[in-house]
Amino acid sequence: MTPAAALEHILHNEIPISKAMGVRVAGYDGASLNLAAPLAPNTNHKSTAFGGSLYSLAVLCGWGLLHLKLAEAKLHKHIVIQESSIRYLHPVGQDLHAECRLDDTAFKRFLRTLGKHGRARLSLAVTITHGNRPAVEFSGRYVVHG
Amino acid sequence: MTPAAALEHILHNEIPISKAMGVRVAGYDGASLNLAAPLAPNTNHKSTAFGGSLYSLAVLCGWGLLHLKLAEAKLHKHIVIQESSIRYLHPVGQDLHAECRLDDTAFKRFLRTLGKHGRARLSLAVTITHGNRPAVEFSGRYVVHG
Repeated sequence: MTPAAALEHILHNEIPISKAMGVRVAGYDGASLNLAAPLAPNTNHKSTAFGGSLYSLAVLCGWGLLHLKLAEAKLHKHIVIQESSIRYLHPVGQDLHAECRLDDTAFKRFLRTLGKHGRARLSLAVTITHGNRPAVEFSGRYVVHG
Repeated sequence: MTPAAALEHILHNEIPISKAMGVRVAGYDGASLNLAAPLAPNTNHKSTAFGGSLYSLAVLCGWGLLHLKLAEAKLHKHIVIQESSIRYLHPVGQDLHAECRLDDTAFKRFLRTLGKHGRARLSLAVTITHGNRPAVEFSGRYVVHG
């Protein structure tokens, strides 16, 4: 099983609402993770994507990327979302696509802090696009500990 | 049908993920709205509440209160979440309970702006408690327009 397939398995089995949302891993290249979900189960009263589903996809995208990168570093740690903010720029009237890209310098600094203190924080930005433009901007601060 | 029952009906029928989450209206007294959801469908890999579900319950609590208050004022408007932030203070290891309370002065000012411009913003705070202490603090800015 590829790391991306293993991540999708974990999400569906351990976070059941991600299965109800139809979340799938759409791509992973070692530096960025793409998650997707169909619009139908995530719709709102205006037939666009529900703000809570957009948030959930974004927070899982950051969590998933950190999970994959820590597994590559053979670090088996707890990853917890501590705080986040989200801005809705445009309604999303199609299937949901989220992307989180790692800042390599920030991640190396984070790994050094984690190695030294057994605990570190990392802020990750996630963008959900509609067509080719950003529709949702998410920023989350994750805490990783042993 | 009471306004609270009508709200639950709207949530389940128009925002299907709220039904998958098991969201129910737990109380409404004209000034504050309480929403609840069982832990089981909203759990994460640590058997506590998934951060995305906590966010969704909070954003629906603010939306629902605004929906009820606008209906009481005979205003049939669109309510959209524009931006929000959330802080996770403690894990929630039991059923989810959210409360949003209206600031009467802020709501009257919001209604005046809405009457004058046909569009207005309102910031709402939602708290999710675990036992008797706050576990999650959410703040959302909603836009209402015709």
